[in-house]
Amino acid sequence: MIQQLIDKITKLNAPIVVGLDPMLNYVPEHVKEAAYEEYGATLEGAAEAIWQFNKAIVDQVYDLIPAVKPQIAMYEQFGIPGMIAFKKTVDYCKEKGLIVIGDIKRGDIGSTSAAYAAGHLGRVQVGINTFQGFGEDFATVNPYLGSDGVKPFIDVCKTEDKGLFILVKTSNPSSGEFQDQLVDQTPLYELVGRRVAQWAEDCMDGTYSNIGAVVGATYPEMGRVLRKIMPKSYILVPGYGAQGGKAEDLIPYFNEDGLGAIVNSSRGIIAAYKQEKYAGFGAGHFGEASRQAVIDMKEDIMSALVRGNVVSAADR
Amino acid sequence: MIQQLIDKITKLNAPIVVGLDPMLNYVPEHVKEAAYEEYGATLEGAAEAIWQFNKAIVDQVYDLIPAVKPQIAMYEQFGIPGMIAFKKTVDYCKEKGLIVIGDIKRGDIGSTSAAYAAGHLGRVQVGINTFQGFGEDFATVNPYLGSDGVKPFIDVCKTEDKGLFILVKTSNPSSGEFQDQLVDQTPLYELVGRRVAQWAEDCMDGTYSNIGAVVGATYPEMGRVLRKIMPKSYILVPGYGAQGGKAEDLIPYFNEDGLGAIVNSSRGIIAAYKQEKYAGFGAGHFGEASRQAVIDMKEDIMSALVRGNVVSAADR
Repeated sequence: MIQQLIDKITKLNAPIVVGLDPMLNYVPEHVKEAAYEEYGATLEGAAEAIWQFNKAIVDQVYDLIPAVKPQIAMYEQFGIPGMIAFKKTVDYCKEKGLIVIGDIKRGDIGSTSAAYAAGHLGRVQVGINTFQGFGEDFATVNPYLGSDGVKPFIDVCKTEDKGLFILVKTSNPSSGEFQDQLVDQTPLYELVGRRVAQWAEDCMDGTYSNIGAVVGATYPEMGRVLRKIMPKSYILVPGYGAQGGKAEDLIPYFNEDGLGAIVNSSRGIIAAYKQEKYAGFGAGHFGEASRQAVIDMKEDIMSALVRGNVVSAADR
Repeated sequence: MIQQLIDKITKLNAPIVVGLDPMLNYVPEHVKEAAYEEYGATLEGAAEAIWQFNKAIVDQVYDLIPAVKPQIAMYEQFGIPGMIAFKKTVDYCKEKGLIVIGDIKRGDIGSTSAAYAAGHLGRVQVGINTFQGFGEDFATVNPYLGSDGVKPFIDVCKTEDKGLFILVKTSNPSSGEFQDQLVDQTPLYELVGRRVAQWAEDCMDGTYSNIGAVVGATYPEMGRVLRKIMPKSYILVPGYGAQGGKAEDLIPYFNEDGLGAIVNSSRGIIAAYKQEKYAGFGAGHFGEASRQAVIDMKEDIMSALVRGNVVSAADR
């Protein structure tokens, strides 16, 4: 699965992923009004609003990007109708040829992790039939419970050619509270990174592994260290843009082959129309604003990578 | 909310919770057949089977226990139909007067954690209306992302009188891989426990806090230490029974007031009819087998607590 992602990134010259994290206050009034008119101001109405919002954005950006990363919490908050909107979003993105990274941050033990893995990346058996529950291509996973929690996900990645991004160092201000604690002079996130590197060796797909890591853009020095510790793992980098990460900060997350990282932006893309820079589009053209924001993000990142000698100008 | 749980535990003399983690292979054939006849061997059929299985067990045990703990992964694996079965289970258990601990192990940052908290414990606003997404009373939370990830859950607990059990030391064999790492001679799980104690102080409900912890029955020495570190936190103890934890092992998890812990059993109760001990009930009476297993679990734990001087014989 990682090879499919790399092929798309290379073809599009776009190591980026759009986070489909639709807060209701990102959704333009006219979209909400139409949804509430049909379903009322209900959970069903909210779910319809975020689905129509997503669809309009995906229609505008799918040809520019390799992947999307829907954040399941933003759907789950609306209960069952929200989960249906999540599933519709996953299905629609796959129809459009996008790779779908389910930002689910699940993690449990044994048969419970196996159930999450089956539901999101694999199949469940019912009688003699098998079914996909949600059908993402990658999932984010929380490693706090250790190997027992991660292995069932890796097993499914092997049988179904799917992938993981395991939380190593997250982008939030308090991520250091536990992740940075020193164990024999080594921060915990490095220990987790080393474990990810071992898991990665066991699940290769071409030159990279299906087992990747999450390392926030807001900690580039740690990104530099983790890049070396996990040479075969793709790094999913949140925190660019709205959370404060700059394009220059992204350089250490890439390998010398110009690969190895994929940068996420959520609010900066899907709520672009709310920024002064894109206000000219107006709420009526929020999808076009997102498209322009993707073009600008790609330009911002690729030119930083050229300046940083990560990719050559000729390759762009 | 913790006070409501304590009142029920005291009234029923039962510091126990039944884990509603319905693997399809726990469900008796006749229940599956009836479900598949109505919905086919489909995700809908599987969801109907686990819902009917749950309902029959709840009908048999609801008068003996204070709470249930549905493990959402076991529902989520069946996609949308599975999530509907989860919601039906939560609603039904609440109708029956049970407290519902959503074993969801969610954890993310900022607005994303807030979305999980709203969806599972609080309310979401849609237009001028508010709705509950899933409506559990407690949720389990993963702390790896630090305070940013936990605080939004605590905020909802305060406004809605709900509660949390934060993962501190899990019951699985590899839980030590990260949780036991020594930071200045202190294991990470203790650091997390100290943080839980701080969060707990800030969210009291009577003599205990709405912010509890998960500490596995399989590590009683660690349980003893964590009990002292988090005096105001209820400890949810998984790992009793099928995972190897014995009733004697549970003593250190309780405070001198005879309170402070609630012990989970999942497979040992819901799949009791498959054990030799309860084989006499037969698959046709799996609910009655679960009832007997609850009675036996309660007796096993309460007599260990009397032997350990945690509760007096007169109090039983």
